[in-house]
Amino acid sequence: DAVVAAKIPGPSPYAAVDARNAGAEFDNLPGFTRSRYARDHALITPESRVYTGLFGWRETNAAWFVTPAMAGGPTFSMYQALMRPGASSGMPEPGTWRFVFVMDGKISVQDDLELTDGGGAASGRYNDLTHGHFAYFPADHRHKITTSEGASLLIYEKKYVPPSGGVAEAIGPNPPTPRFLVGHTDDLPNIETPGEVFGLKKLLPQSLEWDVNFHVMDFNPGEHLYVKEIHYNQHGLMLLEGKGVYRLGDDWYSVQAGDVIWMAPYVTQWYAALGYKRSRYIILKDTNRDPINTNAP
Amino acid sequence: DAVVAAKIPGPSPYAAVDARNAGAEFDNLPGFTRSRYARDHALITPESRVYTGLFGWRETNAAWFVTPAMAGGPTFSMYQALMRPGASSGMPEPGTWRFVFVMDGKISVQDDLELTDGGGAASGRYNDLTHGHFAYFPADHRHKITTSEGASLLIYEKKYVPPSGGVAEAIGPNPPTPRFLVGHTDDLPNIETPGEVFGLKKLLPQSLEWDVNFHVMDFNPGEHLYVKEIHYNQHGLMLLEGKGVYRLGDDWYSVQAGDVIWMAPYVTQWYAALGYKRSRYIILKDTNRDPINTNAP
Amino acid sequence: DAVVAAKIPGPSPYAAVDARNAGAEFDNLPGFTRSRYARDHALITPESRVYTGLFGWRETNAAWFVTPAMAGGPTFSMYQALMRPGASSGMPEPGTWRFVFVMDGKISVQDDLELTDGGGAASGRYNDLTHGHFAYFPADHRHKITTSEGASLLIYEKKYVPPSGGVAEAIGPNPPTPRFLVGHTDDLPNIETPGEVFGLKKLLPQSLEWDVNFHVMDFNPGEHLYVKEIHYNQHGLMLLEGKGVYRLGDDWYSVQAGDVIWMAPYVTQWYAALGYKRSRYIILKDTNRDPINTNAP
Amino acid sequence: DAVVAAKIPGPSPYAAVDARNAGAEFDNLPGFTRSRYARDHALITPESRVYTGLFGWRETNAAWFVTPAMAGGPTFSMYQALMRPGASSGMPEPGTWRFVFVMDGKISVQDDLELTDGGGAASGRYNDLTHGHFAYFPADHRHKITTSEGASLLIYEKKYVPPSGGVAEAIGPNPPTPRFLVGHTDDLPNIETPGEVFGLKKLLPQSLEWDVNFHVMDFNPGEHLYVKEIHYNQHGLMLLEGKGVYRLGDDWYSVQAGDVIWMAPYVTQWYAALGYKRSRYIILKDTNRDPINTNAP
Ligand SMILES: [Mn+2]
Ligand SMILES: [Mn+2]
Ligand SMILES: [Mn+2]
Ligand SMILES: [Mn+2]
Repeated sequence: DAVVAAKIPGPSPYAAVDARNAGAEFDNLPGFTRSRYARDHALITPESRVYTGLFGWRETNAAWFVTPAMAGGPTFSMYQALMRPGASSGMPEPGTWRFVFVMDGKISVQDDLELTDGGGAASGRYNDLTHGHFAYFPADHRHKITTSEGASLLIYEKKYVPPSGGVAEAIGPNPPTPRFLVGHTDDLPNIETPGEVFGLKKLLPQSLEWDVNFHVMDFNPGEHLYVKEIHYNQHGLMLLEGKGVYRLGDDWYSVQAGDVIWMAPYVTQWYAALGYKRSRYIILKDTNRDPINTNAP
Repeated sequence: DAVVAAKIPGPSPYAAVDARNAGAEFDNLPGFTRSRYARDHALITPESRVYTGLFGWRETNAAWFVTPAMAGGPTFSMYQALMRPGASSGMPEPGTWRFVFVMDGKISVQDDLELTDGGGAASGRYNDLTHGHFAYFPADHRHKITTSEGASLLIYEKKYVPPSGGVAEAIGPNPPTPRFLVGHTDDLPNIETPGEVFGLKKLLPQSLEWDVNFHVMDFNPGEHLYVKEIHYNQHGLMLLEGKGVYRLGDDWYSVQAGDVIWMAPYVTQWYAALGYKRSRYIILKDTNRDPINTNAP
Repeated sequence: DAVVAAKIPGPSPYAAVDARNAGAEFDNLPGFTRSRYARDHALITPESRVYTGLFGWRETNAAWFVTPAMAGGPTFSMYQALMRPGASSGMPEPGTWRFVFVMDGKISVQDDLELTDGGGAASGRYNDLTHGHFAYFPADHRHKITTSEGASLLIYEKKYVPPSGGVAEAIGPNPPTPRFLVGHTDDLPNIETPGEVFGLKKLLPQSLEWDVNFHVMDFNPGEHLYVKEIHYNQHGLMLLEGKGVYRLGDDWYSVQAGDVIWMAPYVTQWYAALGYKRSRYIILKDTNRDPINTNAP
Repeated sequence: DAVVAAKIPGPSPYAAVDARNAGAEFDNLPGFTRSRYARDHALITPESRVYTGLFGWRETNAAWFVTPAMAGGPTFSMYQALMRPGASSGMPEPGTWRFVFVMDGKISVQDDLELTDGGGAASGRYNDLTHGHFAYFPADHRHKITTSEGASLLIYEKKYVPPSGGVAEAIGPNPPTPRFLVGHTDDLPNIETPGEVFGLKKLLPQSLEWDVNFHVMDFNPGEHLYVKEIHYNQHGLMLLEGKGVYRLGDDWYSVQAGDVIWMAPYVTQWYAALGYKRSRYIILKDTNRDPINTNAP
C-alpha cells in the first residue's frame, strides 16, 4: 500500500476578518519568547538573539547560541556571524578548529598559506561560497573569511582533541590530523540509516582523526526518529528548513526554520517533521573519542 | 506464620478480543519512551538505546548508558557491546580498568601476556564465557576479547584510583594492585545483609586495593530494600531478571529486565520486586576510597 | 501621535481603615522572603541579606550577593560593603581587580602609589565620592578606600583575564592593561541602542583590554527590553531606582530598588519598568573575551 | 508585656483506641522516607542512613551525610561514626583536618605526639569525652580516637585552606596554623546576635587562621531566624535537640532531633523552633576566606 503524502491547506476563510489578530507581530510581544534554557537542553528562537560586535573580526556582528558556559557543558561554540559588505574574519583561540556553514550571502575563504594542502583548490582558496557550502579550518591554521556583498554564517568552533587509547591504536603510528576542507551539502551522498527513515549526509570524512562530524538530516512530513535517543554525544542544531515537533527531555517544542537547539549529553531527544515541506537540520555530533574523557561540567 | 508466595495470574478473558490493542508495538510509539534523564539519576530503557560502531574494536557496535558527562558526575563508563561473529576488542584508555559481564552469546578472553598472573588459568586465557560470567582486566593490561558466534556484553570501565590517606595506611607498605580475574556469578556465595532481605553476591574481592565492587542482588517478589538509601556511592545498574518498582529521588519507576539505571551520589534509592519471578540486578558501587576526594561535577 | 506618560495614583480611600493591615512589617514576616535562588538566576532582596565582618577590612561589614560558588558559575564577586565612620579597606585576592560603586555616604580612594598613572588626579587620589561615583582598581594595585562619615558601597571583583586568540591579535603587540579610573555615572553620555529604547551608559572604556564593562541602564515607565535576551554573558545587577517586572527563565519577578539579581549565562532575561518613576539599574557584563574559554561550573 | 511560654499538650483521648494506627513503624514503611536530596540542599533522616565499615578504622561503621560529590559542591565531609567497644580511628586524607563532636558513649583522644602543643592537657591526651565534647585535630596531625565502651561521633573533615589576599595581610607575617583543641559545648559563652534571638556558641576560636567555625545554636519554642538568609557560606547541620520547621529554598520541612541538613551556598534558609522543648543544632560554617576562590561544582 503506497504511503500517501501530506496535503497542503487552502486559505482560511476567517483570515481576512482576523487581520488585526494575525499574530504577525509575535516577535514583538513584550516579554514573550519561544526560547527556553533548561538543565539539559536549550531552544533559542530568533526573538532572543542578541547581536554584538564580534571581537577580532571586522564589520561583523555575532549572536552566540552555544558556548561551554551553558548548562550541560558543551565542548564547542556555535554562533551566527553577520558579515557586512567588506567584512573579514579574525582567528579562533589557539588549538581551536572552525567550521563554517553558509546560511546566506556569499563569501571567499583562504586557508593558511603555509600549512594548507590546498583542500582541493589552488593555494587553499575558494570563492563564491553560498547557502549550503561549508568549510573546515583546522586548529591553528591562519585563515581568512571575506565577503564583498555581506553574508550570514553559522559557525562552530571546538578545541581539537587528539585521539588516545584504543582509538589511537586503531589509527596506528603517525596519525593524520584533520585537514582544510570545503564542500557543498547537496554534493554529498545519503548514508544508510538502518531502522530509521531520515536522509543523512555527513559533511566531514568518517575517519578517526576528526573529533566531531556534522550531520545534515532530512525528514519528509510524517517522518520521525524511530529511536527515542539517549546518548552521550552532544548536539548543536540549527533547523534549516521546515517545521515540526522536537521532544527534549520531557518537554515538547514546536520548532521551525531558524530555531537553534542545544542538546546536552544524555538528554532524551526525538524529532518529527510536520506540514507539507521537507525538514532539514544541521547538527554537530562529537565522535571518535572515548567518552570516559568527557566530564560533566 | 509462614510467608505466602505470590500467585501467578491466569490469562485475561479479554486478551483475544483486545488483540489489536495489545500494546505490542509499544517500542515503536512515536516520541514515547519510558526513559528519563534527571538531575540525579537516569533510567534508560531499550527503545532509547543508540548503537554506533565501537571505536577501536572490530565488528562491534555499542550503546553507552553511563559516562562521566552525565549529570551527577559518574566516574565510570557503562555500555553494552554487541559483538558480531568474529569480532574482537580494542583497548580502554590509559590507566583505565575494564569489567565485562556476559549477557548473551559466548566469548574468549586473554589477559596481558606479560603482566598477567594467569587469573587462575594458564596464561590468563578463558574460553566459552557465557551469561553470568564476568572478567576484570586491570588498568593498562593489554588484553583481548574475542567471539566466534557473537555476544552481547555489559561493560564497565573506570580510571583506577589508588589508595591514599587512612586506607593506604591500613593496607600498609607495598600495596597490591587489582589483578586479572574471571568468574561466574552463580559460583559465588551469598553475603550477609543484616536488616535487609535481598540476596547479595560481590563479584570482586573485598580487599582494599579495589576501588569499586560489583554487587549482584536478588529479590523475591514482595521483597524490598528496608533502608531508603541515601549514600555517597554511585551506581550503574542493569536489571537482569524480573520486574518491580524503583524509587529514585521523588520519582517512582516501573522497571523490567533490560532497563538500565544511573544513580548519582546521594540520590534517594529504593527497590521493590513484584510479580512472580525473582528480580536480579547487577550494580557498580565505588568503595574503599575516602569520599572527600570525589567532587561534584 | 505622542506617547502619553503614566499617571500617578492618588491615595486609596481605604488606607486609613486598613492601617493595621498595611503590610509595613513585611520584612519581618517569619519565613517569608521575595528572594529566590534558582538554577540559572537569583533574586536577593533586602530581608535576606546576611552581614558579617569583612575579613581584612577595618570597621566594615559586608553582605555578599554573588560569588563563584553560585549555581551557574559566576566568574566574579558582588557584595555590599557597609563602612562605619573611620573604616578602611583591605586588598582583594592576587590578580583580582575591584570596582566600587558608591551607593550612599562619602569615601576617599587612593590608587597604588607606585603603579598608578594618577587616573586623572594627582597621585591617584580622589576625595568626596558620593552616590553615583565609581572607581576601578586594577588587579594587584595596592589601594585604599577610606571614609570619615561612613558609606555603603556596591563592590564587584573578578580575577583579571588577559586577551588571547583573535582578540589579542586585534589589540596587537604590547597590549595595555586596564588602568585606575574614577568617574561619575551622570557625567557619561548615553550610547546608541538600535532596536531598543533604554538609556545606556558604559562606565568603563570599550577598548579590548577590559574583560568586563558596567552598564547603567535607564527605563521610563512602560519601556522594556525589545529583545527577550539569551546570551553567554553573565550579569550581576542592582536595581538602583524604580520598580518593574523582571522575567528570568520562565519566572516573573516584581522588583524594586534595592533588589539584586544574578543572571547566569544563557538565562532568558527581560525587564519592563512600571509605575511613574524611572527605573535605573547597574549591571556587570563580561565582554571582549572568546566565550569558548568559559566553562560551565 | 511578658512573652508567654508554649504549653505542653496532655494525652489524646483517642490514643488508646488508635494504638494499631500509631505510626510507630513509620521508619519501616516500604519506600517512604522524609529524606530529600535537592539541587541546593539535602535533608537526611535516620531511615535513609546507610552504614558501612569505615575504611582505615577498626571496629567502626559510618554513615556519610555530606561529601564533595553532593549537588552544590560541599568542600567538606560530614559523617556519623559508630565505634564498637574497643574501636580505634584511622587517619583522614593528607592536608585534611578533622573535627569530632561526641553524640553518645565515651571516647579518649590523643593528638600527634610530636606536633601537639598539648591543647591544654599533658601530651595532647583527653579521656572521658561524652555528649557535647568536641575535638579538633589539625591537618596532618597523627592522632587517635579510642573507646572502650563504644561511642557515636559526628565527624567533619575538610582540606585545610590557608589564608590569602587581604586576609593574609590582616594576619601579618608568620601566620599561626589551627591548633589541637578540645572543649565542651556547655562551657562556652553565648555570643551576641544583634537583630536575632537564638543563642549562639562558636566552638572554635574566631581568629583568622581557622577556615571554618562550628556554631551551636539554641532556639526556644516560637523563636526563629529573623533574617531569611541567603549567603555564600556552606552548612552541614545536625539537629541535636527539639523539633521545628526548616525552610530551604522554596521547600518547608518538619524536622526533629537526628535529622541532618546540607545547605549549599546561597540556598534560602530559615528555621523556627516549635513544641515545648529547646531546639539545638550544630552547624559547620566556612569563614575567614575570600569567597572568590570557591567555585561552583
Ligand atoms: Mn542524537
Ligand atoms: Mn545503593
Ligand atoms: Mn543581558
Ligand atoms: Mn546560615
